[in-house]
Amino acid sequence: MEVKQKNVVVIGGGTGTFTVLSGLKKYPHLSLTAIVTMADDGGSTGVLRDEFGVLPPGDLRQCLVALAKDGSVLRKLFNHRYEKGSLAGHSFGNIFISTLEQVTGSLDKALDTIGDILKIKGSVVPVTLSKVRLHAKLKNGKVLTGEHEITSYQLLSRFGIASLSLTPAARVNPKALQAIAEADLIVVGPGNLYASLIPNFLVGGVGKALARAKAHKVYVANLMNKHGHTDDFTVARYVQTLEQYSTPCVFDTVLYNTKKPARALLLRYSDEGEPLTDEHGLPPRYKIVGRDLLSRTLHTHTKKDPLRRTLIRHDSDKLARAIVELL
Amino acid sequence: MEVKQKNVVVIGGGTGTFTVLSGLKKYPHLSLTAIVTMADDGGSTGVLRDEFGVLPPGDLRQCLVALAKDGSVLRKLFNHRYEKGSLAGHSFGNIFISTLEQVTGSLDKALDTIGDILKIKGSVVPVTLSKVRLHAKLKNGKVLTGEHEITSYQLLSRFGIASLSLTPAARVNPKALQAIAEADLIVVGPGNLYASLIPNFLVGGVGKALARAKAHKVYVANLMNKHGHTDDFTVARYVQTLEQYSTPCVFDTVLYNTKKPARALLLRYSDEGEPLTDEHGLPPRYKIVGRDLLSRTLHTHTKKDPLRRTLIRHDSDKLARAIVELL
Repeated sequence: MEVKQKNVVVIGGGTGTFTVLSGLKKYPHLSLTAIVTMADDGGSTGVLRDEFGVLPPGDLRQCLVALAKDGSVLRKLFNHRYEKGSLAGHSFGNIFISTLEQVTGSLDKALDTIGDILKIKGSVVPVTLSKVRLHAKLKNGKVLTGEHEITSYQLLSRFGIASLSLTPAARVNPKALQAIAEADLIVVGPGNLYASLIPNFLVGGVGKALARAKAHKVYVANLMNKHGHTDDFTVARYVQTLEQYSTPCVFDTVLYNTKKPARALLLRYSDEGEPLTDEHGLPPRYKIVGRDLLSRTLHTHTKKDPLRRTLIRHDSDKLARAIVELL
Repeated sequence: MEVKQKNVVVIGGGTGTFTVLSGLKKYPHLSLTAIVTMADDGGSTGVLRDEFGVLPPGDLRQCLVALAKDGSVLRKLFNHRYEKGSLAGHSFGNIFISTLEQVTGSLDKALDTIGDILKIKGSVVPVTLSKVRLHAKLKNGKVLTGEHEITSYQLLSRFGIASLSLTPAARVNPKALQAIAEADLIVVGPGNLYASLIPNFLVGGVGKALARAKAHKVYVANLMNKHGHTDDFTVARYVQTLEQYSTPCVFDTVLYNTKKPARALLLRYSDEGEPLTDEHGLPPRYKIVGRDLLSRTLHTHTKKDPLRRTLIRHDSDKLARAIVELL
C-alpha cells in the first residue's frame, strides 16, 4: 500500500526543534520543512553576526544537523565546537553557514548548497532574511535588547513582559509562507517560549499565514518550566501566550507529556525549573493529547552533545510517533 | 578514437602546482595525482598547526581548489580568506581541512570527503602524514627553523645552504609511493625550490621511488629567480639542486619558458628577482624543451587572488599543452 506524502512544517529553533526533526525524519512519507527563528545573537552566532554582519547561523545549523543523515561524518563536522585557539567557542557549522552566506551573498543559496552537501531530508527555511534583534519591554519599563540578554535575564517572570518585538521590522521569507500554506500539519515547539518560538511570530505575516493555513496546528508543550521565565506556567498559559503573539485560537491541538521525570533528575534540575504537566484550563475547542514523551536515556552534560543544555528531554521517537498520529 | 588514459603525478605545493593542475585538469584522458609538501608553517596554516596540532592544510587546499570544478561556489568558498574579526588571516578551506582532520582523526579520510564535496578531478595526496618542520643549515652555521622562516630569510644565497632537513624524520605516505610507481609522467615544479619542491624529496623513500618509477620525469623551471634565494640560478642549477636532494639524474626532461616577460612587468618585479631563461649547462642526456609558457593576462595584486604573490606567471593552458606533448 502506498502511503500518501504529507507536508509537515516545524516552527521553532533550538534544541526542541532539533528533537522533533530528528524523530520525524525517520518517516519516509513526511516532507519536512523547518521554519527557524532568526533572532539569536549569543555565543558563536553573536560573534559571527557582529564581525561579519551575517544572519544568525546557530538555529539553522541545529536544524540542518537534525535533518542530516545519522552517523555521517559531515554531520559530526557541522556540530564540531572548537575548545581552544582563535576559533574557541565557534562551531564549525556556524562558520560554514556564515562564510557561504558571505561568498554567495545570499543565505538562501548558502542553505541550498549546505542541504545538498549534508544530504538533508527536508529543508531548512529562515523565517526572515531581515537582520533583526529581539527586544523585550518589561512591565516595569526596563527594556532588554537581544535574545541572549533576554534569555539570561532571571527576573522576566517577576516583572512580567509588556511586549516583545523585533527591530527593524522583519519581512517574512516567502519560502516560509509557501511551506505554511502547503502544510498538512504545523508543529510549534517544544522550545524556549521567548527565545525560540515567539520570535517566529513577531515576523510580519507569519500569524496571518498560520491563521489561513488549512493544516492541523499543534503546539508541543515543554517538559519543564524555566525559572525566572515561565515559573508556574500551565500548558494553557503557554498556548495563550503563543496565541497572543501569533493569532487568536490558532492551534487546534496541544500535545503534552504525562510522564513525570525521575525524582533524582528533578532534584538535579531544580534550580532550572519545575515539570510542566498540567493541561487544565484550555477551552474545549482544543484537542488535548497527553502521552509519555519522556526520554529514558540518562543524559549528562557533555560539551560534544548538541542538546547539552537540557537533562530532562523529549524522546525524539516517542514525540515523532505522537505527532504522526495526528496526521 | 579512444584516447588512452594516462597517469600524471604532479609533485610540489604552492602556486606553481596550482597552475599546472589547473591546466592539466582540462584533459579528460589524464588521471591526476598531486603529491603535496607538508612543511608549510606560515600564516593561517601555521596558526592551525600551532593551535590544533594538525597537519598543514594550506598547500593541500590550493591543490584541491585547482582540481575543483571551475566556477563552483564551493571552490570560491574554499578560497575565501577572512579579512576581519576573530578569523582574520584564515582561509575557509584551511579551517575546513583542519577541522575535518580533527573530527575524523585522519587527514587521509578528511581529504577523501573533501574531494567528494568539491567534485575534484584527480586526487590530492600529502607526501607524508608525519608532522614535520623544515630546517635549513647555512654554510655559516646558522640554522633556520620552519618553512616560513626560511622563505622570509633574505640572505640564503649569500651564505649558502649547507643542508635542508625535516624533523622528525618523515615517513612517506604509501599513497604517494603508489601514485609515483603507477605514473606515466611525473611533473616537478614550477615552484619555490626550498619551500615547495625540495621538502617533498626530504621525505624518506621519495627519491628512491622516483628513481625506480618507469614514468617520464619532467622538471618545469620557474619563470623568475628569487632574490636572496636563487639569484643568478640557471635552469641547470635548479635541476642539479633538486637532484642533489632527490636522486642523481632523476629527471629526463626539462621544460622551460623562452618568452621574455614585458619590460614594465620586469621593472615592477625587479626587487623580487630576475627572469630565468638560460638553459645552458645541462648535460646532453636531458631532453630540453623551450616553449612560450608565459601568461599574457595582466595580473595585479588582489587579496581575492589565490596566486596573488606572483605577477609574472605561467599560462596554465600553455604549460599543460607543453606537458601533455611529452606523454
